Amino acid sequence: MQTQPVLDHIEATLDAARERWFSFLRIPSVSAQPAHAGDCAAAAEWVRAQLAAMGFTAAVHQTPGHPIVLGHHPGPGLDAPHLLFYGHYDVQPAEPLELWTSPPFDPVLTEGPHGPRVVARGAVDDKGQVMMWLEALRAWHAVHGSLPVQVTALIEGEEEASSENLEPFLSAHRDALRADVAVISDTGMWDRNTPALTTRLRGIAYVQVVIHAAARDLHSGIFGGSALNPCNLLARILADLHDDQGRVQVPGFLDGVAEVPAALAAEWAALGFDEGEFLSDIGLSVPAGEVGRTGLERMWARPTADVNGIWGGYAGPGSKTVIAAEAGAKVSFRLVPGQDPDRVVRLFRDFVHARLPADARADIEVFGTAPGIEVPSGSRFVQAAREVLAEEYGRPAVMIGSGGSIPVVESLRRLLGVDSLLMGFGLDDDQVHSPNEKFDWACFHHGLRAHARLLGRLAAAPG
Amino acid sequence: MQTQPVLDHIEATLDAARERWFSFLRIPSVSAQPAHAGDCAAAAEWVRAQLAAMGFTAAVHQTPGHPIVLGHHPGPGLDAPHLLFYGHYDVQPAEPLELWTSPPFDPVLTEGPHGPRVVARGAVDDKGQVMMWLEALRAWHAVHGSLPVQVTALIEGEEEASSENLEPFLSAHRDALRADVAVISDTGMWDRNTPALTTRLRGIAYVQVVIHAAARDLHSGIFGGSALNPCNLLARILADLHDDQGRVQVPGFLDGVAEVPAALAAEWAALGFDEGEFLSDIGLSVPAGEVGRTGLERMWARPTADVNGIWGGYAGPGSKTVIAAEAGAKVSFRLVPGQDPDRVVRLFRDFVHARLPADARADIEVFGTAPGIEVPSGSRFVQAAREVLAEEYGRPAVMIGSGGSIPVVESLRRLLGVDSLLMGFGLDDDQVHSPNEKFDWACFHHGLRAHARLLGRLAAAPG
Repeated sequence: MQTQPVLDHIEATLDAARERWFSFLRIPSVSAQPAHAGDCAAAAEWVRAQLAAMGFTAAVHQTPGHPIVLGHHPGPGLDAPHLLFYGHYDVQPAEPLELWTSPPFDPVLTEGPHGPRVVARGAVDDKGQVMMWLEALRAWHAVHGSLPVQVTALIEGEEEASSENLEPFLSAHRDALRADVAVISDTGMWDRNTPALTTRLRGIAYVQVVIHAAARDLHSGIFGGSALNPCNLLARILADLHDDQGRVQVPGFLDGVAEVPAALAAEWAALGFDEGEFLSDIGLSVPAGEVGRTGLERMWARPTADVNGIWGGYAGPGSKTVIAAEAGAKVSFRLVPGQDPDRVVRLFRDFVHARLPADARADIEVFGTAPGIEVPSGSRFVQAAREVLAEEYGRPAVMIGSGGSIPVVESLRRLLGVDSLLMGFGLDDDQVHSPNEKFDWACFHHGLRAHARLLGRLAAAPG
Repeated sequence: MQTQPVLDHIEATLDAARERWFSFLRIPSVSAQPAHAGDCAAAAEWVRAQLAAMGFTAAVHQTPGHPIVLGHHPGPGLDAPHLLFYGHYDVQPAEPLELWTSPPFDPVLTEGPHGPRVVARGAVDDKGQVMMWLEALRAWHAVHGSLPVQVTALIEGEEEASSENLEPFLSAHRDALRADVAVISDTGMWDRNTPALTTRLRGIAYVQVVIHAAARDLHSGIFGGSALNPCNLLARILADLHDDQGRVQVPGFLDGVAEVPAALAAEWAALGFDEGEFLSDIGLSVPAGEVGRTGLERMWARPTADVNGIWGGYAGPGSKTVIAAEAGAKVSFRLVPGQDPDRVVRLFRDFVHARLPADARADIEVFGTAPGIEVPSGSRFVQAAREVLAEEYGRPAVMIGSGGSIPVVESLRRLLGVDSLLMGFGLDDDQVHSPNEKFDWACFHHGLRAHARLLGRLAAAPG
């Protein structure tokens, strides 16, 4: 099975592909809003029908939340590589509606500063990225009557609402989800001209600590100077999280954190990351964080401790002379490969307890943990993806990291033993989760072609 | 004019005094609740009528808020000492109503563990304490047809709602408020058997600091480790407020803070303050605060820095991976005589600014300042009060401090040049501002008699 006729078919039928994409975008499948439950079901059925039309055995599976679509195509047979495509049909709420220049669920192709773009809720996240591989599969099926590899497609409807029902589903359908690699198109390019593979994701340990002292709120006139103040104590504990070099100093926290391998560090250095521009976009001029690290190191390869929320006492207008009975904070540790999130939680517990004076109590709650992930950049899937991206763009793809987590990547590895290939085509200015979300037409077009090429390349590669 | 017949009259007419007190308590003059504005006006008129009935020239003065009652009695003439009695007719809201054992505005005399007590909102704060001196004045007027000293009475209606209109009134009525000393009955006894004069009040500097960094809230996955986090920074700044001995270490803050004079320290030591019990009442066991200081020193003679409120980022249920654009805290410094509150605010500003890295901005707002106050314990008014308290109780009065501020004391001194005599009869268990507020009948009774004695003593004293 040749790839070129598939690419030709894609070019010849682009208008139809766009129309299908627009149909998908017109379904307001907002998972967080109960009023849109029917739309989520409709989007699931829409996806199922697309898969069925290209020879998949596909079904919509009910969950306690929104349904999950699971489809399978045997391709040329059991000896062929097996790809698991993951995506999600649900989208973020579109509000505030008044900030949209066109209705969020009425997609339009408009001219942007860098060429045409599709504007709609879900344009890129994740309907646009899902459509790239759906259309690539469709083109292979149309041209060759089959697919060059085995394909399982998994499309969930709760990614924007914490994917609560995904892990139970993965566990329950372990056999149906067997694959050699997962292909996830929910990441981005390095810039609009440079394709990228994401090979590192930071993990996370998200905890909440609430400090309790006196049995009730106290008057600071009477008790100030004698009674333990949980707000002050909390500040002292949180201040201790970092040393004066911006390094997290929770004892043991940095154990297992490796330096970036020299080759990768050189690759990152060659990216010419402009941290000044990165920061100026958000109104800052000087990097905070660890001294003596590059911007990309800090973002992709160094763990952090950020207070995401803090509260205690009186926060209304004016003054109140109160010593609160309790004060709390939410703290997230971004983790890198080599750090065990559960151990980090234990270390944080010890760290807090070591700083509690008599009469203070700390309630620590854990809201989520996920380890940092590193995709071996030498795997045959990564190599194949690099090659097709280079062919498609005429320049090499770069290997990048991501400061955030993509929970499904960790779930797939932990529950199914499947590594992920993160080949995404989003751009920093895509307004993901915001009004006027867009996906550049060029990104969609190249992404679709790259996926078609990847299918052909993996079929040809030694199995 | 003899005092004994006045005391006899008081004993003979106690029931009527109690009835008048109850009438006053039945007026729900809650200054903070607009629905009670009419009740506040009624309470003011009630007080005016009481004063008029004992020969005062008295008037209700409108303000932008609740009215102020001002009355004057010439007593024996311009050569006599001139006392300014201050009190307030307004009370705290009674809510939560369901916690009251009897309706808050339907006073009852009930038996408590230590004898009879009056239960009602305002029983002690401040209607009960005002009634002590009103009844003492009434008894003098009833027995002698006049008063033994010149008396000006000032009763405001916004003490429980920040006394916004008091200072403009004091300034506008400077001449009508001339006096040798102000008598303020809004404080407490040392314990139920030991009368006390409050001769030290801590002052306050109440500030709010809001730290701003990035132009908007950020995703902690992408920006964690690179972007300045205002929550973390705020914690570091607040943690720096104290050294490891619990001492406030804002540079210059402790300048002018004197050690307690040996004689006063000895007097305080003799009080036998049981800090263990004081703390166990609020669920604590070990004093926080400055190492190497006694409990009473920490409460009355040492300045503090307490975080009264803190906020920033996400404080709702669960997790949100946000780096907030700003975080804030309310901080109150309790001050002692020798510290200039405005200087303390400047020092705090410098302290914060010295800790701001590039890109951080701090907005500092001042919500109130008042210096610590020390009433010279050798003044003739203090001496007279000690003598009458010793006569009334058969044991010496003790000189105590107060950890809190009574703003009117500072206003009277600053605007009118008048020192205050703080002779109060409240007890720690009076449930001030809480449900089931009460005033022990014995406290009211002794307090009334002590005020009657004070009037006689000051008349007899050299003017």
